[in-house]
Amino acid sequence: MGEIMEVKLLGVWYSPYAIRPKIALHLKSVEYDYVEEDLFGSKSELLLKSNPVYKKVPVLIHNNTPVCESLNIVEYIDETWNSSGPSILPSHPHDRALSRFWSSFVDNKWFPALKLAAITKSEDAKAKAMEEVEEGLLQLEDAFVSISKGKPFFGGEAIGFMDICLGSFLVLLKAREELKGEKLLDESRTPSLCKWAGKFLSDDTVKNVVPEINKVAEFLRELEVRAQSAASRS
Amino acid sequence: MGEIMEVKLLGVWYSPYAIRPKIALHLKSVEYDYVEEDLFGSKSELLLKSNPVYKKVPVLIHNNTPVCESLNIVEYIDETWNSSGPSILPSHPHDRALSRFWSSFVDNKWFPALKLAAITKSEDAKAKAMEEVEEGLLQLEDAFVSISKGKPFFGGEAIGFMDICLGSFLVLLKAREELKGEKLLDESRTPSLCKWAGKFLSDDTVKNVVPEINKVAEFLRELEVRAQSAASRS
Repeated sequence: MGEIMEVKLLGVWYSPYAIRPKIALHLKSVEYDYVEEDLFGSKSELLLKSNPVYKKVPVLIHNNTPVCESLNIVEYIDETWNSSGPSILPSHPHDRALSRFWSSFVDNKWFPALKLAAITKSEDAKAKAMEEVEEGLLQLEDAFVSISKGKPFFGGEAIGFMDICLGSFLVLLKAREELKGEKLLDESRTPSLCKWAGKFLSDDTVKNVVPEINKVAEFLRELEVRAQSAASRS
Repeated sequence: MGEIMEVKLLGVWYSPYAIRPKIALHLKSVEYDYVEEDLFGSKSELLLKSNPVYKKVPVLIHNNTPVCESLNIVEYIDETWNSSGPSILPSHPHDRALSRFWSSFVDNKWFPALKLAAITKSEDAKAKAMEEVEEGLLQLEDAFVSISKGKPFFGGEAIGFMDICLGSFLVLLKAREELKGEKLLDESRTPSLCKWAGKFLSDDTVKNVVPEINKVAEFLRELEVRAQSAASRS
């Protein structure tokens, strides 16, 4: 009995989190159907049914079984298609633990600070959050130097788990740079991450998957206009 | 050349997070030195050096190399001692993804709500957080029924990853019950989790590792007294 393998990814085009499983699927040469969700309109029945806890993208649906949470999906892809394409997580337990440690740092400490800085109304809170963001980038610079050991990626010669995790935010950072002139990755403070970012964004797999920087900048501008007009109405 | 294997665990006796690697090491029959940290006095040089990012316990130090973050340590133990003792994570990628999804739910959504409820001064915020805690337990009840398929643990016949994750909080819940008469795991609302909790806490490995409920209750009482006297001084 031949099994029909069906792989579907629910995402939104501008989401850093949705970029992650896309890169992983491309690295593993897995064919999939991509379904664009409309988070500003109404979420699809499929999304609500597949991720009842968070109702968020991305969701990977593999043979009708959903997997939620972006890095969880990337690990699932790595383990499910373990014989096709490069390994996404390193092979040694200690290197795997380092990848998971730093990716959790990015998702649970560094990016929440950046998000807070973007949305808070308090100038004090914004300044404090931006300090955390910059301090976090210095820590990530050190982590990169120590983990990559002179190679181009956290994953060594090829893109790995931690590259996907942090790299998924690069388009957003570049879009903020375009919009606000705010340069977070800076040649003098984080030279290795700057070089890494260039390599990551010009990688063939990544180039085909990430949205265009100016489109994301345009989208962020629209979000700000909406937020301002909502604030002026209230 | 014989390698001297040195395994050291830095923890504090009352920490749910420090219970996790202890259970994992016991499941894998790994001998280790346990070092009790004093988080109210001064943290040891070893802790500060081993976990410079968070400066928190638990830290596992294996042959001088530190691994931080409790669930990350449990995965590391599972992968490093993969041929001794039972597997902690399930073998199928989808079951692994489910374990990781629900453990992230516990650590990033459910427990933060319980923590907020415990420390907030606002009665509204407390009530809202407790609603989230109770709603979370209903979701975990459903998850347990669906994942365990009639077996005693999330991990099936034996304690697995998600059992360690949620189970590590049980002593704290029981201590709060003793202290405040607050019964979060309730026979009528979460019957399967109640039964699971009983099985988990009476498991031989767990019994040897978790602190006594009345000692934790006493510790929580002291913390409250300290917080009140600090508040009355300020």
